[in-house]
Amino acid sequence: MKALVYQGPGKKELSDRLKPDIAAPTDAIVKISKTTICGTDLHILKGDVPTCEPGRILGHEGVGIVDEVGSAVTAFKPGDHVLISCVSACGKCEYCRRQMYSHCVHGGWILGNKIDGTQAEFVRTPFADTSLYPIPAGADEEALVMLSDILPTGFECGVLNGKVEPGSVVAIVGVGPVGLAALLTAQFFSPAEIIAIDLDDNRLAMAKKFGATTTINSADGKAVEAVMKMTGKRGVDTAIEAVGIPATFELCEKLVAPGGIIANIGVHGKKVDLHLESLWDRNIAITTRLVDTATIPMLFKTVASHKIDPKLLITHHFTLDKILDAYEAFGNAAATKALKVIIDA
Amino acid sequence: MKALVYQGPGKKELSDRLKPDIAAPTDAIVKISKTTICGTDLHILKGDVPTCEPGRILGHEGVGIVDEVGSAVTAFKPGDHVLISCVSACGKCEYCRRQMYSHCVHGGWILGNKIDGTQAEFVRTPFADTSLYPIPAGADEEALVMLSDILPTGFECGVLNGKVEPGSVVAIVGVGPVGLAALLTAQFFSPAEIIAIDLDDNRLAMAKKFGATTTINSADGKAVEAVMKMTGKRGVDTAIEAVGIPATFELCEKLVAPGGIIANIGVHGKKVDLHLESLWDRNIAITTRLVDTATIPMLFKTVASHKIDPKLLITHHFTLDKILDAYEAFGNAAATKALKVIIDA
Amino acid sequence: MKALVYQGPGKKELSDRLKPDIAAPTDAIVKISKTTICGTDLHILKGDVPTCEPGRILGHEGVGIVDEVGSAVTAFKPGDHVLISCVSACGKCEYCRRQMYSHCVHGGWILGNKIDGTQAEFVRTPFADTSLYPIPAGADEEALVMLSDILPTGFECGVLNGKVEPGSVVAIVGVGPVGLAALLTAQFFSPAEIIAIDLDDNRLAMAKKFGATTTINSADGKAVEAVMKMTGKRGVDTAIEAVGIPATFELCEKLVAPGGIIANIGVHGKKVDLHLESLWDRNIAITTRLVDTATIPMLFKTVASHKIDPKLLITHHFTLDKILDAYEAFGNAAATKALKVIIDA
Amino acid sequence: MKALVYQGPGKKELSDRLKPDIAAPTDAIVKISKTTICGTDLHILKGDVPTCEPGRILGHEGVGIVDEVGSAVTAFKPGDHVLISCVSACGKCEYCRRQMYSHCVHGGWILGNKIDGTQAEFVRTPFADTSLYPIPAGADEEALVMLSDILPTGFECGVLNGKVEPGSVVAIVGVGPVGLAALLTAQFFSPAEIIAIDLDDNRLAMAKKFGATTTINSADGKAVEAVMKMTGKRGVDTAIEAVGIPATFELCEKLVAPGGIIANIGVHGKKVDLHLESLWDRNIAITTRLVDTATIPMLFKTVASHKIDPKLLITHHFTLDKILDAYEAFGNAAATKALKVIIDA
Repeated sequence: MKALVYQGPGKKELSDRLKPDIAAPTDAIVKISKTTICGTDLHILKGDVPTCEPGRILGHEGVGIVDEVGSAVTAFKPGDHVLISCVSACGKCEYCRRQMYSHCVHGGWILGNKIDGTQAEFVRTPFADTSLYPIPAGADEEALVMLSDILPTGFECGVLNGKVEPGSVVAIVGVGPVGLAALLTAQFFSPAEIIAIDLDDNRLAMAKKFGATTTINSADGKAVEAVMKMTGKRGVDTAIEAVGIPATFELCEKLVAPGGIIANIGVHGKKVDLHLESLWDRNIAITTRLVDTATIPMLFKTVASHKIDPKLLITHHFTLDKILDAYEAFGNAAATKALKVIIDA
Repeated sequence: MKALVYQGPGKKELSDRLKPDIAAPTDAIVKISKTTICGTDLHILKGDVPTCEPGRILGHEGVGIVDEVGSAVTAFKPGDHVLISCVSACGKCEYCRRQMYSHCVHGGWILGNKIDGTQAEFVRTPFADTSLYPIPAGADEEALVMLSDILPTGFECGVLNGKVEPGSVVAIVGVGPVGLAALLTAQFFSPAEIIAIDLDDNRLAMAKKFGATTTINSADGKAVEAVMKMTGKRGVDTAIEAVGIPATFELCEKLVAPGGIIANIGVHGKKVDLHLESLWDRNIAITTRLVDTATIPMLFKTVASHKIDPKLLITHHFTLDKILDAYEAFGNAAATKALKVIIDA
Repeated sequence: MKALVYQGPGKKELSDRLKPDIAAPTDAIVKISKTTICGTDLHILKGDVPTCEPGRILGHEGVGIVDEVGSAVTAFKPGDHVLISCVSACGKCEYCRRQMYSHCVHGGWILGNKIDGTQAEFVRTPFADTSLYPIPAGADEEALVMLSDILPTGFECGVLNGKVEPGSVVAIVGVGPVGLAALLTAQFFSPAEIIAIDLDDNRLAMAKKFGATTTINSADGKAVEAVMKMTGKRGVDTAIEAVGIPATFELCEKLVAPGGIIANIGVHGKKVDLHLESLWDRNIAITTRLVDTATIPMLFKTVASHKIDPKLLITHHFTLDKILDAYEAFGNAAATKALKVIIDA
Repeated sequence: MKALVYQGPGKKELSDRLKPDIAAPTDAIVKISKTTICGTDLHILKGDVPTCEPGRILGHEGVGIVDEVGSAVTAFKPGDHVLISCVSACGKCEYCRRQMYSHCVHGGWILGNKIDGTQAEFVRTPFADTSLYPIPAGADEEALVMLSDILPTGFECGVLNGKVEPGSVVAIVGVGPVGLAALLTAQFFSPAEIIAIDLDDNRLAMAKKFGATTTINSADGKAVEAVMKMTGKRGVDTAIEAVGIPATFELCEKLVAPGGIIANIGVHGKKVDLHLESLWDRNIAITTRLVDTATIPMLFKTVASHKIDPKLLITHHFTLDKILDAYEAFGNAAATKALKVIIDA
């Protein structure tokens, strides 16, 4: 089968690989219908994710059709259409019991990282009963690819952790794909204001289309000033960090109101300065989270009832044999304006 | 009247001052029965609290008897025995409505800071109806002085923010008076383990007496190793920072388990390093809080029903005319083993 | 001044009364701009509210302009435009501290009940600082009349108590004005389905316009069957009772899914049968609540940011001298299709 | 093997039965070490539980040693010491995901009800990985039998649902074994008062020993009066119903304070009168729950750390061949003062 294989820092190729086999009774083999590329795949390609070794098939998102199941799989059978969670959950450990699937002691984020992933014709998915989700007949499967990772990431790490609520003021710092996912799902809770902050005017224009009530280009260093003016010097109830660098996190530290929350989504590569000398008495919370995908069932219902249109995030389409072009487009988002690219397998 | 007056960095004196008058209809004048000294008073004396100007009477804790009330005070009358909250709450602003009295737009921590405080024979207390608490006849007033600040601080900032719960594992980093207040009140929720960490063996011995299940002297740099051994490499559910320096906060960053909370109590004078490169995916929360004293009524009930004995924190007694000796004892706690000192006015 | 006065069961008249005076330092006198009539006013007129004695001016909703304030009022001054909460809150008692203003030991629902109300040219409002809300310049005051009582009632008693959430299934039993208020505010949380159930097709048609995804006329006794069919035999996550009679409450008992909530809004005049023999093991909650109006500030923000349009509830307009006609229209809602009527004073 | 078998209403016998076999890959066979009898077993024997058919081995509590596991069981192996939850949880369905194991669509309370139970030498336990709990070496296994059902029932249905908190006032109506389990576990949260109410002075004396601060014999019909006097006419924050008849539930309706909770534990056989005419405006909640046993891991930790001593509940010991005597003692608790009886298999 065709598969996109990581070949060490800076290198990837479309290879021919053997179709995977059932390795444990709880496994399923899924024939991929559609997959996509995540910012994390680019991190791996930079060599920043040491758990992912050369030779690995990348990808942790996708929808497909069950091809084969292990003897202990009871919730799925061949032919079932399924959504693949980016997180594999054993369903039994202490963390899975708490719906903190990201820290499953037997799984977690392993697909396209510690084991072969979804950018291929077939994938082996461990713990199928608790890591796949049934797709009802007639659903728009392309939209559902957005539920593998990006929408639950924006929703769980940004919106739920950030306790967005009716009438509140939210700032989203960084409106790339995951920031936009937070922006879409924040609207489930009817905040009064959603302020999108970025350095790129194209992204800010996109944020406006996605529902931001205000956009601020922070290139002039006056974003804090602008937000304080808008909020009567209070700051924001929820500041969502969706970049992953010190500058944007520290911007959030300055934006958050007393009693507010900084909800971190960004993948950080180094430490940040936490200004406790000004924050110790501000009654704030800072949260971090690797997506648990525990809200996939909830998100399914919001998609089915048209509360949200995940396809807004999809900008490009490719076939699997053109996946290198897909990486090219996704990796040059400033030029291509790519958000999420769909790859038909 | 006699009063302890701040005279600028490093200087204080016991002065003779005029008895305060009602300045607003919501004020009360309280004749102080008992007051105490807080670590914050020492901060002021070092010159670290710019809002507190020379000439200020210090002190923000105490119990006393109402001497006079303004025309709008309805909940108290002269002769009533009252507990004084360290935080003055107007009861009307957005923050007071949310019980976030610490950020009251008209009050907050002003006593012994922006206005004259309680280390005197009389004090003027603004917003008396919502900043004083009635003491029932027969209550042990000395014990209740601990409810002005130190017990709600340990409880709200450490225990409630830290979400201590039955069976959980708690680490308290720093077991000075406020760490011990957290230790006492953490036991309201029956955690399985309370690990006290400090550099001072005397304090650790005290922590043991107060209910710590394990004590660790972190001088050898092996506290993290010890805690990880105890917890099967998980770390602690709640790490309470009760010192206020970078080293102890960063120790908490290393102690906290996935899904856990770092509840900061410490008053920080400079920034700390937040290692988001290892914490971004750990599903943790970090909280800060200036005490709101919103739990004074709850704490009253726990004292009345003997669930907690606040007098464990009291080590020394002085009269107001010996308050300079009280400062001497409190300021040299390593030698005197002082925790809280009671000053009879 | 003109005022609508209760004259005993079945009797009311538009009388000439003295303008009220400040009676306590915390009072304000408000010149009414707009008021409205509540279902509770009809209850009073039937003689069902013994706390309301003949001679009382009715009305507990409205907006106006502050005419005079007592000496202890600090948040308002003459000329300020204000919204009047239907609940008077002292801001000091145990219940006010918990934002349970409905049970304020000095206030609660007293306006137009135990003291004269708002269906007049002027009203005396006790505890003005904590019972009035400032209206910003330029706001649509007619819309804000809906925030005195009906919208917070639907939102607090129905939607918040019912824990409506994204993707959930909600049934609202009874879609008169307060059921419609619940329907409007439920949409803040993006439920997947809102099922409106009533006996009146006109009301159901209105519910559809307000955002109900399904409407069921329960006259045929098959509402339970229909809901179970729609939900795969689960039932609904939230059942909101907005009528106040045994039949509708018992319908909710049959509609609620395991793990769900019955949120009661209805004013009940007699006991209902609670079928614990089938509910004891269903992991449900039943909640009751007299509106606290604690969410008025939150609702203000949702109106200002156009998340909700309260004017949808307004069907008729009258002037104060025609208030008897307004009662006539409101009291015959089946014929007039009245929801809320605005009375200009 | 020996087994206690239900033979239809009023009839049971100690029979010789075949040792069970693995029926599904997720099953385990457990050799019972210790089991006990539950009030529900008596209900079955009265013929009140139609899902339990004649020929069924009774019992849903116990500890034992794994004898054999199905091919899909990964968390346990023969020889492991295990605690058996009274609830079988597939770990995969919507309800299991929410830790609402009681409503597992494939399991729930089936042991000793729809399938053979634990009052035997061996039992087949479905969904072993998510329905058994490992017992660490050296633990007191007799104490842990109390964690199969009675302690989580008192804790989850009574204490957690009832939101017991530091300083609160709790009433427990009915202090039989499950009421005492609530009484023991309520103390995890340090309420100020726990009022035990019963008709039997022996039970009340036992409640006093278990930590009740006040006991009331309600035979004189003056329990409400007594509680209102104790609480300054407020009533209790949490009323736990642990009987299951109309009279005791209606007593709870009268005891609960505004803003309080009635947490039902009792197994009800008929409807009760819910006095909404007096409760609709009281801001209360009523909760029901079939135990989920989701808190077994938490309870394990509280037992291991000596926060609770479950053996206080154990009054009698028998061997399996004397189980008819055990039923005799347990069924005549008024005379024998039996709480829980341990049966060694």
